[in-house]
Amino acid sequence: MAEISILGAGGFTGKELLSLLSHQPTHQVVHITSDKLAGKTLSEVFPEIPFPKNLTFQKHEDPLPRGSLVVLAVPNEVSIESAPKFLDAGHKVIDLSGVYRLHNEAIFEKAYKLKHTKFSYVDKAVFGIPEMFRDKLAGADFVSNPGCFSTSVILPVFLLNGLRKNLKPRIVADSKSGVSGAGGRTEDAGYSYTGVYENFRAYKVTTHQHEPEIREYVFAKSGLPEPEIVFIPHLLPVYRGILSTIVLEFESEPASDPMETLLASAQNEPFLRIRKTPEEIELKKVQNTNFLDVSLRRRENTLVVVSALDNLVKGAAGQALQNINLMTGTPETIGLLP
Amino acid sequence: MAEISILGAGGFTGKELLSLLSHQPTHQVVHITSDKLAGKTLSEVFPEIPFPKNLTFQKHEDPLPRGSLVVLAVPNEVSIESAPKFLDAGHKVIDLSGVYRLHNEAIFEKAYKLKHTKFSYVDKAVFGIPEMFRDKLAGADFVSNPGCFSTSVILPVFLLNGLRKNLKPRIVADSKSGVSGAGGRTEDAGYSYTGVYENFRAYKVTTHQHEPEIREYVFAKSGLPEPEIVFIPHLLPVYRGILSTIVLEFESEPASDPMETLLASAQNEPFLRIRKTPEEIELKKVQNTNFLDVSLRRRENTLVVVSALDNLVKGAAGQALQNINLMTGTPETIGLLP
Amino acid sequence: MAEISILGAGGFTGKELLSLLSHQPTHQVVHITSDKLAGKTLSEVFPEIPFPKNLTFQKHEDPLPRGSLVVLAVPNEVSIESAPKFLDAGHKVIDLSGVYRLHNEAIFEKAYKLKHTKFSYVDKAVFGIPEMFRDKLAGADFVSNPGCFSTSVILPVFLLNGLRKNLKPRIVADSKSGVSGAGGRTEDAGYSYTGVYENFRAYKVTTHQHEPEIREYVFAKSGLPEPEIVFIPHLLPVYRGILSTIVLEFESEPASDPMETLLASAQNEPFLRIRKTPEEIELKKVQNTNFLDVSLRRRENTLVVVSALDNLVKGAAGQALQNINLMTGTPETIGLLP
Amino acid sequence: MAEISILGAGGFTGKELLSLLSHQPTHQVVHITSDKLAGKTLSEVFPEIPFPKNLTFQKHEDPLPRGSLVVLAVPNEVSIESAPKFLDAGHKVIDLSGVYRLHNEAIFEKAYKLKHTKFSYVDKAVFGIPEMFRDKLAGADFVSNPGCFSTSVILPVFLLNGLRKNLKPRIVADSKSGVSGAGGRTEDAGYSYTGVYENFRAYKVTTHQHEPEIREYVFAKSGLPEPEIVFIPHLLPVYRGILSTIVLEFESEPASDPMETLLASAQNEPFLRIRKTPEEIELKKVQNTNFLDVSLRRRENTLVVVSALDNLVKGAAGQALQNINLMTGTPETIGLLP
Repeated sequence: MAEISILGAGGFTGKELLSLLSHQPTHQVVHITSDKLAGKTLSEVFPEIPFPKNLTFQKHEDPLPRGSLVVLAVPNEVSIESAPKFLDAGHKVIDLSGVYRLHNEAIFEKAYKLKHTKFSYVDKAVFGIPEMFRDKLAGADFVSNPGCFSTSVILPVFLLNGLRKNLKPRIVADSKSGVSGAGGRTEDAGYSYTGVYENFRAYKVTTHQHEPEIREYVFAKSGLPEPEIVFIPHLLPVYRGILSTIVLEFESEPASDPMETLLASAQNEPFLRIRKTPEEIELKKVQNTNFLDVSLRRRENTLVVVSALDNLVKGAAGQALQNINLMTGTPETIGLLP
Repeated sequence: MAEISILGAGGFTGKELLSLLSHQPTHQVVHITSDKLAGKTLSEVFPEIPFPKNLTFQKHEDPLPRGSLVVLAVPNEVSIESAPKFLDAGHKVIDLSGVYRLHNEAIFEKAYKLKHTKFSYVDKAVFGIPEMFRDKLAGADFVSNPGCFSTSVILPVFLLNGLRKNLKPRIVADSKSGVSGAGGRTEDAGYSYTGVYENFRAYKVTTHQHEPEIREYVFAKSGLPEPEIVFIPHLLPVYRGILSTIVLEFESEPASDPMETLLASAQNEPFLRIRKTPEEIELKKVQNTNFLDVSLRRRENTLVVVSALDNLVKGAAGQALQNINLMTGTPETIGLLP
Repeated sequence: MAEISILGAGGFTGKELLSLLSHQPTHQVVHITSDKLAGKTLSEVFPEIPFPKNLTFQKHEDPLPRGSLVVLAVPNEVSIESAPKFLDAGHKVIDLSGVYRLHNEAIFEKAYKLKHTKFSYVDKAVFGIPEMFRDKLAGADFVSNPGCFSTSVILPVFLLNGLRKNLKPRIVADSKSGVSGAGGRTEDAGYSYTGVYENFRAYKVTTHQHEPEIREYVFAKSGLPEPEIVFIPHLLPVYRGILSTIVLEFESEPASDPMETLLASAQNEPFLRIRKTPEEIELKKVQNTNFLDVSLRRRENTLVVVSALDNLVKGAAGQALQNINLMTGTPETIGLLP
Repeated sequence: MAEISILGAGGFTGKELLSLLSHQPTHQVVHITSDKLAGKTLSEVFPEIPFPKNLTFQKHEDPLPRGSLVVLAVPNEVSIESAPKFLDAGHKVIDLSGVYRLHNEAIFEKAYKLKHTKFSYVDKAVFGIPEMFRDKLAGADFVSNPGCFSTSVILPVFLLNGLRKNLKPRIVADSKSGVSGAGGRTEDAGYSYTGVYENFRAYKVTTHQHEPEIREYVFAKSGLPEPEIVFIPHLLPVYRGILSTIVLEFESEPASDPMETLLASAQNEPFLRIRKTPEEIELKKVQNTNFLDVSLRRRENTLVVVSALDNLVKGAAGQALQNINLMTGTPETIGLLP
């Protein structure tokens, strides 16, 4: 059980977290901030969220309730400064930005085009994919919630851990995201209807900031060196969801069946669902849920893995809540499964 | 100049060809068939096409006007029988189905799950990508118009011919198509609104019938053996357009700059446009045109090529008109450029 | 608290009700039927609903658990026979079809093109708009849940009860509904993507079966005779939601301010929200909620009322749950508000 | 035949007009302006328009080619000053803004929230609905092209001229427009994807600037006084098209059948199509065409008229071209029908 302060609660992710928390009685939201919305109430800004208590948006610099767990849903620059400040003041912190994920400073600066003034704090953060790092997340004080694209690629490949010694160290990941994956509030998004509707395009081809994140974590539990990642994100004319198509290549005949490996790895995981064929993976089955759906097809030495998740839930706010549950000793599925 | 009979004029592609032909005075449509629409007139069925002459749909078996060029926009089984029949009766024929493209009978039967009763006619057909086979298409009697996905992958890679000796013989092509790419008339398509809207999925992962077509033709002009193709089509919630993301790998440092190679290959082509960056490629720039837009990004030994076309135009009816122009000695851009 | 049997649980509305019930612990679903899905489990059919207990779909004729409250989400013909049967066997019944709403048999038969074999049971049913008939619904054995369009027109006009004596007895209601308002499961809907997307049209202009329902109930609590209704439904290229634009005319200067009347009428209603201007009413504010949003603009003797609701929630399953709560003495907002 | 200068050629309407003109050889575009795009070429800005001559965008104040017909697709304020200037310099002018339509200055200023500095020029302009004012438009020097909504309401009601004496002087027009109806270039539109997609709302309820335009012209040819107009525009999640649902009321039994009146009025009109039932009217039948489709249903003394047009074609650029043809003695359908 936690009292929760959400900084940047007016954005896509903040709103999603508020919505998830409005459906459970265990945690309590006690403080929300948004410089733009300061002074307005929840019911004015988000009439569709039936929140039990009609909180008022505060400014970012307003003092936080003592002991509250802090969710940072703020821009990268703000997270860099805020996370250490709140940690040092004794708060538990979960950061949804990308600034506490990468352990190589030069790579971070290139990916984010940003100087990191608190880089020593990166080592204090646990990377928040529960299915990979559940032990470290239990009771953790500082969690860095992963990127939405990253989760959709890292976690499926992690499930194939048993086969990885036989894989060539090169992963082609072709990902497609709905517009809410771009982050920020509606008005900030800069995506006009006529630019997105009846349209489709790639963006940040091989230059997206989630590519080094995938590279660092995708083989992290296998003892193998980081593989090469060819990551190509695309913008879908849908609101929610990411579908990633991941192509791997075996060096030689794999020792065990990839589908069985997948099924075995996901066996006791409440939010992982393995489908029999990649054609069964689709956005509408995961939208508004915390599930990651995965399937694959092997053809000789080629392995095509297809995964889908809701970028705002398992790709952001849902996974954050899963982590908050672990950080506070709450059952992991509270607020995410009935 | 040609008098044109369109068999199967009630489908997506037939309609598109009618629409293109309604905007030019050189060719004349003299006969249209549709078993389902027989007896109805063009203006009843397609009120939005301002066709100069209000033709009536005939049945498929009705006699064709002598000497007319026959466009087959009919199911695969029908094309198998019809193409030889009309060829033998002295018509020029362009077939939009997939049954006269593949030269290996076993591969054909596996891909199309169909016995081919006229396989000897495959050798008589010219594969209709003008930018590759213009010489053979000029004056040809029998053309097999390529698949929409195939065009979006084969043609961009063909433009890199000069670099191919240095490429690994393995191409990963991740393609995304609008619903009209599925072929057939609206009512036949079987795609409900609630199944496509706000959704996205892969289909026929590594098993699509265009994969062997890509394999046969993608290196056809280079003298190199066929490469391995990993082809993964997806269904977009849009009506028109295909965007393909093609990942290639160099064996070693390429001899020349890929972008320069691309620009040089496309130099005099009226329907190819090379963009400076892959982020500039998008469906809305090619919808309702016969253009193929291509760009690429190289990162060390990886080459990501992104292409876009309108599946109903350059991927079907537009390319067919380009071929009809070549077959009949008409300037290639008639009906496609002003 | 109720044990609930849902007949026809595989349709749009059945699914929505299952989804709502999966988020609350008070009522228990004990039995679900679908002739088409019989033998399959909930998690197979609706993987996105995290239902606590993985029920299996039964056939319609399979015996119901004793004492369970029966929800009929079945075709009109089936409801006619089923409702009396289950009532007579001692079940409480809520019928989501249209066959127990109209009290004039001739009008019913004309609107539904159906002979009613159990017309005497119409008098036993309470019309399920809680804001109008809360007293009769409390503890009721048999409720006829209203139509989605009907709710969006009847309820806003009911809120203006105080002004109705001054209104001309003629209401023009122009309603626009998303595709899920058409009822039935995805596959049955018969709406192809290419028929709905980038399209808009009117349907059943002045002939929709909800028109007599609006006529019978819209002035029911005012003692006034039934007004003339000009009802024009349209199909929107969206999935969820109905927005109705209702034009009324005053005979003369109204005695009180319409906005104040609206605010006063909705004052203690948990699911009614009055907005200051009609421009603030939009589908996205009510989607996935049980709210009805209403506003209006008066210009001289003309009154334009705009309302919005989610056709699957306040227009169907949500209002049904509101009624189930009333029928079983459960707090009215259980399962609908946190 | 005309040489055409388009001022404001970078907006939705300017682009549409360029696209229409690129498909005909009679008129020649000789000059295009856009302050924002000045210096760029057509093929850079609109790669999808295959324009024969690659013009460069000029600034608004750059000198115009002598004798060219001027199309004003610029903001209201700019049109006020520009139209008189170009007229006085001997150009023919067609203005696509709303500032030369209304003949009552007070009503103009209220509707447009704008002072009109050249109001005397209003009398020089012919209102550009060819089906109503063809005689005056032939050879005219100055045409004010009507609003998109206005055309969709005025023209259908005009077709019922023979019945109007029997109509109550009150018209309820419920119109629904795609986003391109909002005017301006994509980036300026201010419509985000997440604000429009899966959404629907009314705007400017009874306060839209097209309402006085409808009032002034809808009965203009009948000798009857202006009726009351209740006009309610809505924003559809589609790109192109307006569908208007117009409700009229007869005082008493009409003298002739409304459908026959409609058919007779539209008989020789190339761009009017009468459908048998209002359910046949839909956006997709008029998109990308200059047609106005109309149908109606009468029920006793109520008449529901449904109309559809493409707001960018018959609602703007197409009707402008129809007017340009009339102004220059060119056959009226040039560039609009093959």
